[in-house]
Amino acid sequence: MIHLDSDELLIAKNILDLKNASGSHSPSMFTLLENIPQINLKIDACFLSNPYATDLFIRYFEKELVKTNKLRDVLEFYPSQNQAIAQTISQVINMNNENIFVGNGAIEVIQAVMHNFISGNVIVNIPTFSSYYEFVKPGVEVIYNQLDKNNEYEINANQLIEFVNKNNGKNLIIINPNNPNGGYIKSNDLQFIISELSHLDNIILDESFIHFAYEDEHLNMVSFSEYFHLYSNLIIIKSMSKDFGIAGIRAGYGIMSKEKVEKLLQNGYLWNLNGLSEYFFKLYARPDFLKDYEQVRKKYIIDAQDFFKKLNEIPQIKIYSSFANFALIELIDGSSSSDFVSKMLIKYGIYSRTGNDKIGLEGQFVRISARSKTENETIISAIKNVFN
Amino acid sequence: MIHLDSDELLIAKNILDLKNASGSHSPSMFTLLENIPQINLKIDACFLSNPYATDLFIRYFEKELVKTNKLRDVLEFYPSQNQAIAQTISQVINMNNENIFVGNGAIEVIQAVMHNFISGNVIVNIPTFSSYYEFVKPGVEVIYNQLDKNNEYEINANQLIEFVNKNNGKNLIIINPNNPNGGYIKSNDLQFIISELSHLDNIILDESFIHFAYEDEHLNMVSFSEYFHLYSNLIIIKSMSKDFGIAGIRAGYGIMSKEKVEKLLQNGYLWNLNGLSEYFFKLYARPDFLKDYEQVRKKYIIDAQDFFKKLNEIPQIKIYSSFANFALIELIDGSSSSDFVSKMLIKYGIYSRTGNDKIGLEGQFVRISARSKTENETIISAIKNVFN
Repeated sequence: MIHLDSDELLIAKNILDLKNASGSHSPSMFTLLENIPQINLKIDACFLSNPYATDLFIRYFEKELVKTNKLRDVLEFYPSQNQAIAQTISQVINMNNENIFVGNGAIEVIQAVMHNFISGNVIVNIPTFSSYYEFVKPGVEVIYNQLDKNNEYEINANQLIEFVNKNNGKNLIIINPNNPNGGYIKSNDLQFIISELSHLDNIILDESFIHFAYEDEHLNMVSFSEYFHLYSNLIIIKSMSKDFGIAGIRAGYGIMSKEKVEKLLQNGYLWNLNGLSEYFFKLYARPDFLKDYEQVRKKYIIDAQDFFKKLNEIPQIKIYSSFANFALIELIDGSSSSDFVSKMLIKYGIYSRTGNDKIGLEGQFVRISARSKTENETIISAIKNVFN
Repeated sequence: MIHLDSDELLIAKNILDLKNASGSHSPSMFTLLENIPQINLKIDACFLSNPYATDLFIRYFEKELVKTNKLRDVLEFYPSQNQAIAQTISQVINMNNENIFVGNGAIEVIQAVMHNFISGNVIVNIPTFSSYYEFVKPGVEVIYNQLDKNNEYEINANQLIEFVNKNNGKNLIIINPNNPNGGYIKSNDLQFIISELSHLDNIILDESFIHFAYEDEHLNMVSFSEYFHLYSNLIIIKSMSKDFGIAGIRAGYGIMSKEKVEKLLQNGYLWNLNGLSEYFFKLYARPDFLKDYEQVRKKYIIDAQDFFKKLNEIPQIKIYSSFANFALIELIDGSSSSDFVSKMLIKYGIYSRTGNDKIGLEGQFVRISARSKTENETIISAIKNVFN
């Protein structure tokens, strides 16, 4: 079992204070380093992002912006308007631009959707990403569907449909793969759920982690967006931060009915992207970039799944099966998850995330993300040491 | 009088189509160049921004981010949360961070304020920046106070107070200096207006161009934010795009009551800045950067005022007096403003903005921004040529 010495306890107290000040999210790495100089951060394993994709983006960025005069344009001038950037995205996802709402990160799309389209009640499977229930407007009832710990918090299609109907649900949130456990609903099951619930006002499907999931041995991903036109109540939300490794840039989009996009753009969201996110979306629509990206996506999946396998061999933890780029681990030796997070951070410079503040998680949980192959190895040996 | 030949008319038609697709704003330079390859854009004089400040920012950016390993951090990792960045800003503007709401550009602050706090009616002086009346929620009455063309569209304190009271105004927008004419209300007059209207629900004071205004020979600016604590109904909005020359980064903030900031952050706006805007705000709070900035601010004002003086000598136009970084010019030789804008763009590569879509402007108007000294000279000689 993990124990902290008195010096570590003091720092752990600082970490906890910062964590509490950040609400139901982790304080950013920058905030952490500024406030606790004793911490020597080496790996941010709180952070859900493909580092190989960051390498790729930086390669393009340096070649095309830094080494030319174009960087200045990107910083100095106003970016294009929302629908001009939607037009760029429409080319790559094979969707009409009138169905695309571009966001300053997926979080802006979530906020816009929750504030403008969700009324009455909303069914949220828990544990899940907290912004979906935190961003509801006053007066909207959040109805929690507690996922079954014995089923590794996976969504069961029949249970969910029954729960929604029994509770007279008007709106439903599905995150696929789900955060924080990485559980994945296969596209057949998802189609079943969504077609059975076509009477709902809205089904929000968050595919922010879909690039890490696969249903065949070639690791091809299956986005539900190809079925979008069959379901008029469907809103698909996509973050680009995780799969493309560019959280600092803030880029995301939502796919929704033309009427919904029009309503959002009618009195707002005109210039909500920045020069770098516009540059990113132009890359996203380019076959040369996408071909390179596909390689780093698959490389990362292979390394991540290998990381999960090695985590699974550590006897003091139970790992939940994940099709995302993180693993939910349960400490089963009696250690507390905050002690684990503090010890890992103070002693090894590895930042991970406790599940303490996630409603619907019962037990001592830590979420830990897959990083590069060498970083994953460092994480594995640190965890082994922490328990010895 | 300006005439277009048949080739120019065709391109002018393309420009007009793009303009119409952009609503009441100009299409971005990128959108323009992508869609009309015939245009050889040399100067974007649509664009309201201090180019010397852009030079300064890029100097810091290259030294501190590109030439170190820090650029990667800024692109890869999540930026800090809204209130952590407000804390940074609070140091430089001498304001409690609880009164600061940080925005993805001032436009996001405008949208948040208009959607959350403005109900009943709102008084808008016209001509002005269109987003203030475009972003009102359905059901809010916009009451236009037509500024007097004979008084160069300047705001008259007594007239405005009387108009607000006569119309039972609940909310008021003041942009100082105003866009598109650059008219400036001196701080004494502004204090008089705001203290006489302390019974309104909200007074929104947009100081996005305040760094270009001055009341003494040393060109010192007078921000109203030092009086903020005297008026609980005051909301001050600040764009950083214009004065700091970084429109592509998207950075702005609002100063408002603690209760208003809390309401906005209660269910949204958690991570609305990007890595570059966070870096910018850290610079903004640094004395070394601010000292450098003060030099380029004054240099730009001197060049801009000199530019306005030279524009004033061109007989075919009347120039409205401006304390901002742009001049509203009226074509008084019978030319149409769209012909002027098309000709300048097609023949000289200089992009300016017609006032056709600005409600409250009566006549043939063009807004033209001050750029660098040499660009200003190019603009002056192009305008002279256009009329010959």
